Amino acid sequence: THERTAASGVCTRRTPLNASTNMRLKLPITCFILEIIIIILFGVLVQYDEGTDAKLWHDRNHSSHSDYDNDFYYRYPSFQDVHVMIFIGFGFLMTFLQRYGFSSVGFNFLIAAFALQWATLMQGFFHGMHGGKIHIGVESMINADFCTGSVLISFGAVLGKTSPVQLLLMAIFEVTLFAVNEFIVLSVLGAKDAGGSMTIHTFGAYFGLIVARVLYRPNLDKSKHRNSSVYHSDLFAMIGTLYLWMFWPSFNSAITAHGDDQHRTAMNTYYSLAACTLSSYAMSALTAHDGKLDMVHIQNAALAGGVAAGTAGEMMLTPFGSMIVGFVAGIISVLGFKYLSPVLESKLKIQDTCGVHNLHGMPGILGAIVGAIVAALATADVYGEGLTDVFPDVASGEISASDQGVRQIISLAVTLGIALLGGLIVGFILKLPIFGAPPDTICFEDSIYWEVRRSGNVMPLSQQHHGTTRRHTLIRPG
Amino acid sequence: THERTAASGVCTRRTPLNASTNMRLKLPITCFILEIIIIILFGVLVQYDEGTDAKLWHDRNHSSHSDYDNDFYYRYPSFQDVHVMIFIGFGFLMTFLQRYGFSSVGFNFLIAAFALQWATLMQGFFHGMHGGKIHIGVESMINADFCTGSVLISFGAVLGKTSPVQLLLMAIFEVTLFAVNEFIVLSVLGAKDAGGSMTIHTFGAYFGLIVARVLYRPNLDKSKHRNSSVYHSDLFAMIGTLYLWMFWPSFNSAITAHGDDQHRTAMNTYYSLAACTLSSYAMSALTAHDGKLDMVHIQNAALAGGVAAGTAGEMMLTPFGSMIVGFVAGIISVLGFKYLSPVLESKLKIQDTCGVHNLHGMPGILGAIVGAIVAALATADVYGEGLTDVFPDVASGEISASDQGVRQIISLAVTLGIALLGGLIVGFILKLPIFGAPPDTICFEDSIYWEVRRSGNVMPLSQQHHGTTRRHTLIRPG
Amino acid sequence: THERTAASGVCTRRTPLNASTNMRLKLPITCFILEIIIIILFGVLVQYDEGTDAKLWHDRNHSSHSDYDNDFYYRYPSFQDVHVMIFIGFGFLMTFLQRYGFSSVGFNFLIAAFALQWATLMQGFFHGMHGGKIHIGVESMINADFCTGSVLISFGAVLGKTSPVQLLLMAIFEVTLFAVNEFIVLSVLGAKDAGGSMTIHTFGAYFGLIVARVLYRPNLDKSKHRNSSVYHSDLFAMIGTLYLWMFWPSFNSAITAHGDDQHRTAMNTYYSLAACTLSSYAMSALTAHDGKLDMVHIQNAALAGGVAAGTAGEMMLTPFGSMIVGFVAGIISVLGFKYLSPVLESKLKIQDTCGVHNLHGMPGILGAIVGAIVAALATADVYGEGLTDVFPDVASGEISASDQGVRQIISLAVTLGIALLGGLIVGFILKLPIFGAPPDTICFEDSIYWEVRRSGNVMPLSQQHHGTTRRHTLIRPG
Repeated sequence: THERTAASGVCTRRTPLNASTNMRLKLPITCFILEIIIIILFGVLVQYDEGTDAKLWHDRNHSSHSDYDNDFYYRYPSFQDVHVMIFIGFGFLMTFLQRYGFSSVGFNFLIAAFALQWATLMQGFFHGMHGGKIHIGVESMINADFCTGSVLISFGAVLGKTSPVQLLLMAIFEVTLFAVNEFIVLSVLGAKDAGGSMTIHTFGAYFGLIVARVLYRPNLDKSKHRNSSVYHSDLFAMIGTLYLWMFWPSFNSAITAHGDDQHRTAMNTYYSLAACTLSSYAMSALTAHDGKLDMVHIQNAALAGGVAAGTAGEMMLTPFGSMIVGFVAGIISVLGFKYLSPVLESKLKIQDTCGVHNLHGMPGILGAIVGAIVAALATADVYGEGLTDVFPDVASGEISASDQGVRQIISLAVTLGIALLGGLIVGFILKLPIFGAPPDTICFEDSIYWEVRRSGNVMPLSQQHHGTTRRHTLIRPG
Repeated sequence: THERTAASGVCTRRTPLNASTNMRLKLPITCFILEIIIIILFGVLVQYDEGTDAKLWHDRNHSSHSDYDNDFYYRYPSFQDVHVMIFIGFGFLMTFLQRYGFSSVGFNFLIAAFALQWATLMQGFFHGMHGGKIHIGVESMINADFCTGSVLISFGAVLGKTSPVQLLLMAIFEVTLFAVNEFIVLSVLGAKDAGGSMTIHTFGAYFGLIVARVLYRPNLDKSKHRNSSVYHSDLFAMIGTLYLWMFWPSFNSAITAHGDDQHRTAMNTYYSLAACTLSSYAMSALTAHDGKLDMVHIQNAALAGGVAAGTAGEMMLTPFGSMIVGFVAGIISVLGFKYLSPVLESKLKIQDTCGVHNLHGMPGILGAIVGAIVAALATADVYGEGLTDVFPDVASGEISASDQGVRQIISLAVTLGIALLGGLIVGFILKLPIFGAPPDTICFEDSIYWEVRRSGNVMPLSQQHHGTTRRHTLIRPG
Repeated sequence: THERTAASGVCTRRTPLNASTNMRLKLPITCFILEIIIIILFGVLVQYDEGTDAKLWHDRNHSSHSDYDNDFYYRYPSFQDVHVMIFIGFGFLMTFLQRYGFSSVGFNFLIAAFALQWATLMQGFFHGMHGGKIHIGVESMINADFCTGSVLISFGAVLGKTSPVQLLLMAIFEVTLFAVNEFIVLSVLGAKDAGGSMTIHTFGAYFGLIVARVLYRPNLDKSKHRNSSVYHSDLFAMIGTLYLWMFWPSFNSAITAHGDDQHRTAMNTYYSLAACTLSSYAMSALTAHDGKLDMVHIQNAALAGGVAAGTAGEMMLTPFGSMIVGFVAGIISVLGFKYLSPVLESKLKIQDTCGVHNLHGMPGILGAIVGAIVAALATADVYGEGLTDVFPDVASGEISASDQGVRQIISLAVTLGIALLGGLIVGFILKLPIFGAPPDTICFEDSIYWEVRRSGNVMPLSQQHHGTTRRHTLIRPG
């Protein structure tokens, strides 16, 4: 029986029970406390906004033309696309590991479900307290998903080496710092970053990379046989890649101004991604000594065009400009996977499981710089009356376009500063031995946190069932 | 060759040919007769509604402002999300079984495609005969998908133990009874149930559970080695789970009133699901002796928050209230999987393959009760002019809010009654031996109804091909 | 070690290195040249249209009512559904092959990302030069995706037997010819074909079939052991099928006129597909000697109803008519897979890997004929003022309805002519030996173009790593 199973694709080695990784109390306590705190804070602080409150909407609606003015119809389809990116996109992108699919999808699910609630509160504190209350609707839902995306990027850097309790803790701090940074960048500094090249991608990537640095494991080689993909796990990962790729135009345009702004942002992103895909394939074949394409590049680098169009996408970047940005992003990203990541690991001791530096870090910085340049070049001649939507302070004459460009660059520096400092502190918190991190020998392994059924269909005779529904052949620690 | 194959993940044991399970004539006859009846009835009874008919729309549109008033733009994005839940969500959620993926996705596809046509007719009879004709458009399409969802819930209870012909028969009766119950609950009793906690989830679950009871198989243990998941089948099931989870806000809001109602319902459901996810993870770890998470709970219980917000979601439940509801639903659902399902099987002889009682049954009842309470607490002060959308009879002064609460509770009782009685009768019909149910020894097995290719890439020498496209290495009964 | 791996589902035979199939220079050069040409042409020729340009939109908007008039809100949700069909739908539909999943999804991704850019240019030349510039927005994005769909259909015919460079070349020519044919059919001849029964499906299928004919491989039997599916590859393919099926209503309605037209087209397609599903299941069981359903039929024939409703879907076909069309399409398609494809291969030497003749070819012609008939029967009595949207030339009195029917039939003939002639020429170009087609012995095999990781978790000792992130156990040619 054992040999049968061992030979059948999914490995079933016995996982030694480790008291510290046992989640029986740690995970429920963490989840329950967090959720109860959130519920209490929602009860005290959160209210429907004008578009979701029955009374307010109907009061306002007396003088308006149509239910269509409700922001729901402008943004909900975009929200759902973003939602799919967060849960399917990020979740399945990380299933490439052969023995970590449950955790990739499952922990992604858990921390995203937590983070979007926490983000509603944190972003509400900084963005929109109205008489002591946080007003929420579809726009806050999108913003909460955006903030969640940032946490999931950081998750990619530490994938396979952290317990769910560590991840929830990371999410608490990261969401909070995200909201602080977002407030400084967008509200204090007045920068534009609708698709989050800075606030989401750069922030999430460098935060996660520093956490990974602090959690460096010199003996991670002991788990290296699991730190790779198998055939079907790469196909599952492609589901994640493609949903991210397809819906990135919705992501970047989800909270831009109504009308031409949403429309233009989506289209710019679409062309940036298309160009990025061609340069990623080209570079993947070019950098392989035998010219064979590498799934790692396809799954990741082809998305860099979306990241890099995150800031400038809403501006008059033109499809021409978008394609150049995407084209360059794909090249940078593949080169990063091929030549930079090994150096980061060997020299800087940053073990970046998913290569988020190549997908979100460098392309995010590229996007921020492109955004600064395009902002600095903005003219009333090109934008017409639309300048008010994109650069309100420039349109009002308060600042010049080049001032706006400077704002953008300062915002990038601030974002990097907060991400690096925050990641450093949070990394040391996560390092405390009580949170159940897996030992070096059992990283990238689902069975340490999940009941993993045995592949094959032979059930041990010893297993006694008395009428349970949906029985499982479980692999229990020996 | 045989050993090779046997060792390769997917088992290829030979299935003995059983005359009664042979679908060569039974399935085509059933499908053809049903489809021809449907086509004739559509020809006689069905017409485009005002939004889909070229003449009617343009006549009406003369006096209106915009093509945007067409209900298509209000509801089609929601419809597509619901559509994905029906075909991908339910279909893949059931692929967790190691040898029943084709049937889970494939029979789901078949009965859904049938049920949505039949539902259009049955719901049309009861809801909207206009001068002897059924008028259809995007709202009837959503309602048809909703009714289909109910049938798919019941399918979950009998998964692996029924032939496609049995399932089509079940769908005929269940759709019909669904339409009757829906008519009584919504039109006669005047209850509100936009997301179907009662009419869809409670109805579908208890109908299916009683059918499963009548079809009880004392010797199902003979197939128990197939009644479990393997690693990749659990990942496929997570695709189903996540699509259901992500799009549930669209489901509950798909047919609520335009404007704030759709907006609020989507947001309430979003928060209910998020809270439910945290409590499901917590309970899954807490109830496992070694603290390991169980995929069964994650795949199912995390969705209970959507079910439980099905009735009250459109009301002024507040995000705070939604989170409490979701939080409780997740706890109840995991406890049900862990402690109640084994009792249902051993004591009540209900073999509930997917645990629909835990995902749809109990959370559906919870949702109905919550809906009754929130309805009874409704005040003009909170809803303002919006009261007309949510509780028209209360707004008009015809009844009091507490009367509305009573209506809701009566509706729950009626739903349970019709589901239980209907399921009992239909179960006995399905028990007739002519419909090709699988024998106890070959339940949960695709190869009884599907041509299943052999895993691995060795083709027997004996197999003669003469130019067929897309050749298969088939496993034929010996 | 080798035996372990060999026994584990995914085969890992060593692929002999073949100089001509090495893509190290060919693929990067092709991708870079094409992308740079596209970027230059976009820089010179392409501009934002009125809905995406900040200045133009705000100028126009002065006199209009709402940002809602922006075409983005009418079409973007449909666009995203179409986008999913192109990348997930087509991509995963072709993953049924046991050893060709990376190529199916990955080459689909590459050629689609290229084709949508090229199509923007080619369609722009013929459809909408405004003062020497191509104006683009969401409608051109949908049209580019449509054109891409046609290329992907042709890809299905040659799947497994062509290199990525060949596919890119095919895309260049096919997109160009598609734009020519589309211009003739829609603009010169004045035919209607919103869902592309003719311009997309018939064109793509017959173009691809002729290419496959020219690329005929008499010794393809040497790879026949890989030209089949395994259990999980069929489940991956079902993801593709279902997304195509669910979103086909959006596909057919994506560029029809606003209002009732989009609404009606979506609904007609919905019912056509539902009826088609039932007839496909019926025929699949009926044509199998043991009554077992065949995944090939379910994955493909059930979609024929969408193809066949592509032309008439926007007309007053009625749900009744739609169901008849879908019902017939499903029957034709299964019969084609069962009886016609083997003849095409043995007699006409057309090796149609995915059976596109059965899914797109015959149902496309059926759809064209149905469209001609329904057009010829159009009356002002039925369409009212809506006649202007659907048949503007008939509404204006310029031609009669039967003239419109004749236009439709001529358009079908033209489409077939251009597809067959174009495919013939392109086939001979692709036959040049320099493009790296795989040898007959290694068709349907990912490892010729992709780095394929070994299944199982044993890493050869010889492999030296120095700190690379995301290590792979690669199968390198011996």
